[in-house]
Amino acid sequence: MPETTGPLPEVLRDPCELRRRLDAARAGGRRVAFVPTMGALHAGHLELVRHARELADVVVVSIFVNPTQFGPREDLASYPRDLQTDLRLLAGLADLVLAPGVEAVYPPGHATTIHVAGLTEGLCGASRPGHFDGVATVVAKLFSMVGPCSAVFGRKDFQQLQVVRRMTVDLDLPVTVVGRPTVREPDGLAMSSRNRHLTPEERRRATALVEGLRAAAAAFAAGERSVAVLDGLVRAQLEGRVDGIDYVFVGNPETLQPFAGPVPPGGTMLAAVAVRVGRTRLIDNTELGAEDLVVPAGGHSPGTQD
Amino acid sequence: MPETTGPLPEVLRDPCELRRRLDAARAGGRRVAFVPTMGALHAGHLELVRHARELADVVVVSIFVNPTQFGPREDLASYPRDLQTDLRLLAGLADLVLAPGVEAVYPPGHATTIHVAGLTEGLCGASRPGHFDGVATVVAKLFSMVGPCSAVFGRKDFQQLQVVRRMTVDLDLPVTVVGRPTVREPDGLAMSSRNRHLTPEERRRATALVEGLRAAAAAFAAGERSVAVLDGLVRAQLEGRVDGIDYVFVGNPETLQPFAGPVPPGGTMLAAVAVRVGRTRLIDNTELGAEDLVVPAGGHSPGTQD
Repeated sequence: MPETTGPLPEVLRDPCELRRRLDAARAGGRRVAFVPTMGALHAGHLELVRHARELADVVVVSIFVNPTQFGPREDLASYPRDLQTDLRLLAGLADLVLAPGVEAVYPPGHATTIHVAGLTEGLCGASRPGHFDGVATVVAKLFSMVGPCSAVFGRKDFQQLQVVRRMTVDLDLPVTVVGRPTVREPDGLAMSSRNRHLTPEERRRATALVEGLRAAAAAFAAGERSVAVLDGLVRAQLEGRVDGIDYVFVGNPETLQPFAGPVPPGGTMLAAVAVRVGRTRLIDNTELGAEDLVVPAGGHSPGTQD
Repeated sequence: MPETTGPLPEVLRDPCELRRRLDAARAGGRRVAFVPTMGALHAGHLELVRHARELADVVVVSIFVNPTQFGPREDLASYPRDLQTDLRLLAGLADLVLAPGVEAVYPPGHATTIHVAGLTEGLCGASRPGHFDGVATVVAKLFSMVGPCSAVFGRKDFQQLQVVRRMTVDLDLPVTVVGRPTVREPDGLAMSSRNRHLTPEERRRATALVEGLRAAAAAFAAGERSVAVLDGLVRAQLEGRVDGIDYVFVGNPETLQPFAGPVPPGGTMLAAVAVRVGRTRLIDNTELGAEDLVVPAGGHSPGTQD
């Protein structure tokens, strides 16, 4: 991935210092946009940061591997961390990077959790209990620290995006949550910090996710609306190629629940998958009828340009 | 209670309209202080509003009987509501009153709850499951709507004050939470919106709460630090006079847990009670070593002047 050029962003460790800096910027009439990340940045993150730049005068990126959204048997310890590489990637793109220590975010005595009911129960929530409580809580905290007008999230973590949207509306936070299309590798694999854990052989098999979603997208484009058929098309691509299927979900993108009746004319459907390839958990999704998953041979997805 | 004079506050029903108005005030460099209430205002509320005036340029009072903090067998339906009287009491004291409908605060699809662990488990939390989740959530929402520098709460609801403080710190909300002494009737009864439900005979018995707390305060002032002795002194005043004791708590004011060891020299102790008198639930508390509960015969508590 080519590194961008320009000045390195300034790194702040102290959320209170960040707030003072941004209060001064806001008092001067400057608008703040925010991209929360866990670091290990890739082209998908950088697209979010570029979009943030279009929305505001000051772009803040947080880099914080949030322990409360990892389960006890998940990959918190092995989650990739490389702040210096991340900062070089953000050169010329972000103005400020908030990179707090765990103790600055969760000082002793921290006791507050935000729970979003409903949206968090299925999909990744079913196999990752507490994950979305951790996400909602840290995002609310980061929103308070940064005070952005807009915050930009990737649609690759679609359930996370919907949970954050719901939490933001429900808590009346004065933040516009923006979801951006998934950025993909030339062969269609969704960009993810966890892709770097894949062996070359696993990397080849990992394209099964996007191929399953493409099969569903092609059928949807041809008029197919049966959840069972679409689900079967996704699974047909996964079976024999991935090492375990956590879920295949085809349903309502707003509620993340199965459709109660037929899909309305003009309505979209979410197709989402979570699998294990080797020891790595991978997710992907597409909103059928709302985005184009066709990838030109050898080229980038149109989504990356959007 | 004498009504104050001065212009009636402006009433806004729409939280978004309030935010626009206050954004304009903030952009002009004016500071906002906030007093959240459920209406049925009494002299205790008015003291909070007067204090808010000392802290900021714009004083906002919310009047909202929050349904999510009432249990299914509690007094939501009978909670006193009289907006016009409340507004007259706020004349000359508050600039803006936010009085939203339930649907403006909890539109369809609302799914987010804030939970503060630990502090919410004992005292009122034990007999009012979910109560403090409702309080924490609505206070966070109101803080977002109003965007105050300071928010003023009464110490009569001491557990609520501690929960709000914890939530505010934990979610990094840029709000200073201020706790103010309990305002009392001439005979010492803590001011409460629920006092108006008491019959004259119940009203006489209701002074048992403050008399129990005074007995503990007198013993504490004389050097007593035994939780069992102080608890017994409170109960001795309550028994035979109230119609049911929910709890008597003597313990750590910060954690709302029993002390693990002896009270440290110079340390304070919280004495808190919840009882039923007739069909009315009443609470009261005092922080032993931190405030003076002595009430001059026929006069007001020093607390009301503080």
